[in-house]
Amino acid sequence: MAASGAGASGEDALIARYFKPLATDPGAFGLVDDAAILKASGEDIVVKTDAIVEGVHFLPDDPPDTIARKALRVNLSDLAAKGAIPAGFLLTLALRRAQESWLAPFARGLGEDAALYGCPLLGGDTVSTPGPLMISIAAFGRVPSGKMVHRFGAQPGDRVVVTGTIGDATLGLDILKGGKAAAALADDPAARDLLVARYRVPQPRSALAQAIRDHASASMDVSDGLAGDLAKLCSASGVSAVIDVPGIPLSAPAATLVARGTADIGTLISAGDDYEILCAVPENRFEGFARAAGVAGVAVTPIGTMIAGTSAPKFLDAQGREVALPRLSYSHF
Amino acid sequence: MAASGAGASGEDALIARYFKPLATDPGAFGLVDDAAILKASGEDIVVKTDAIVEGVHFLPDDPPDTIARKALRVNLSDLAAKGAIPAGFLLTLALRRAQESWLAPFARGLGEDAALYGCPLLGGDTVSTPGPLMISIAAFGRVPSGKMVHRFGAQPGDRVVVTGTIGDATLGLDILKGGKAAAALADDPAARDLLVARYRVPQPRSALAQAIRDHASASMDVSDGLAGDLAKLCSASGVSAVIDVPGIPLSAPAATLVARGTADIGTLISAGDDYEILCAVPENRFEGFARAAGVAGVAVTPIGTMIAGTSAPKFLDAQGREVALPRLSYSHF
Repeated sequence: MAASGAGASGEDALIARYFKPLATDPGAFGLVDDAAILKASGEDIVVKTDAIVEGVHFLPDDPPDTIARKALRVNLSDLAAKGAIPAGFLLTLALRRAQESWLAPFARGLGEDAALYGCPLLGGDTVSTPGPLMISIAAFGRVPSGKMVHRFGAQPGDRVVVTGTIGDATLGLDILKGGKAAAALADDPAARDLLVARYRVPQPRSALAQAIRDHASASMDVSDGLAGDLAKLCSASGVSAVIDVPGIPLSAPAATLVARGTADIGTLISAGDDYEILCAVPENRFEGFARAAGVAGVAVTPIGTMIAGTSAPKFLDAQGREVALPRLSYSHF
Repeated sequence: MAASGAGASGEDALIARYFKPLATDPGAFGLVDDAAILKASGEDIVVKTDAIVEGVHFLPDDPPDTIARKALRVNLSDLAAKGAIPAGFLLTLALRRAQESWLAPFARGLGEDAALYGCPLLGGDTVSTPGPLMISIAAFGRVPSGKMVHRFGAQPGDRVVVTGTIGDATLGLDILKGGKAAAALADDPAARDLLVARYRVPQPRSALAQAIRDHASASMDVSDGLAGDLAKLCSASGVSAVIDVPGIPLSAPAATLVARGTADIGTLISAGDDYEILCAVPENRFEGFARAAGVAGVAVTPIGTMIAGTSAPKFLDAQGREVALPRLSYSHF
């Protein structure tokens, strides 16, 4: 990505107009170079890439600014779960055509989030595609050397903790598609808006990064469904888990839909796009973790316990029976 | 990108099978985590992303291993031009479906190049798309602090230098599309193969990175056409240039096609996909640069001189007349 003066092509002009204002970091060289610099002074650089595709991760008529926010935030969510502080990102934008009416709000949303999360645009590539829009972001964070929090490391006895609420995004998508949740909430636009916003604009738990680093034995973000992602964390850690399903935090609209039978709890815990943090916290660290989360303003809820073994995590209802899961998690293939 | 055991989905199984073997760096954690670590100890991390799209940057029936090589090499070309040594990369792969017959050679080509250039896979994201294949790579390199070579920095009097040969890739593409070059070289399969290979598999000048850092005042890779890319370098540096077009290095097949009138030199110097390095070298550094390039085994050719001014670079023929250029460079929009 390079914003050029003389000989500026349409592509260069587009970059100069919409993206150069976002390149606030000195290492981005105002996008007039072919690469950017990420300064490093002994800490580890955490690198992560996540892409979102029109029709797969967002809907064609989602507002451009929310598409931009989602593209960046799904990566920020990973950085937070790893205990990393955002440092910057590279953007790959594949577009059918360069339309001001789409690019202007896209760039505005991206720039606002870059500023909000302290994660400046360092560079990128803008390409034409005959296919769906695709935004791929590579995000960089910093952790003190050796301090990245992994999927592995959870121990039997650790508490299983999630941030925020689970299952909202899949209900928001259902609403956007005119599904059952839309009908059930026909008279409650505020509830519909909340769920749709949870689908379109994830809330990366960046404020929790240091608490994760200080207290969690293992951590990941929940992007493909709580049940499947917990299975992955358990597998990487060589442990199993027992989860108290009634203790899984739900938003008020999600709880209402479950209570009415419109939504199934098993579906909510195996659907994607939560972008909450799932972590294991040793029992003797939990109080400190909860206190730090309170200071950071992030709700954290213990939902179960890591146990010895390699069987799949068990999700139990109030009567101690296993909850049926339609699938473990989202998979692209 | 995470290769999982228990609860492995199709996506996880695909990653474990094809991409985990490429994740040889300890910072990749065998792709069983959500992010990777790039160790840094005081040097600058150079970050770059370039994407290639089916039907735009490669043809649907290009061999999968050459598509993989091109995706990585276009980024390695940038790192080399910036004077950086490869450190690793993140891969975003958008696929319509997961086909063994395509993925196996793709991963093999990618792995071979990752090993060849010392640039291991650190992580990535594999997504489904209803549209064209797209591969976006974010590549990382290292330079001593403050030593990245920029587009800016060229001074009047500096020599303008290019590596390798110019214009082969566009002729290779013309051959693949059954254009005039294909007919003109109907009886010379070796020449056709050379040009097609130059389109499909760029040759990043990684071996020249240190010489660039030691001797060049400004540098970039030629990816969108020599004429346009030189205009960008001149603009960033606040200089102009005069180029001796007969001195621009051509491969034997390209020279033959120009001599026969099949190809136009103006087209060759304004077409994309060369992935050579264009740099400015102060007169008193040129001998040292040429010697270092010789040791590195990379052909370098002086093609002109930087001059004071802000007008567009001039491309002159043997009679000192300006060569007509159909366009300055490739632009996506």
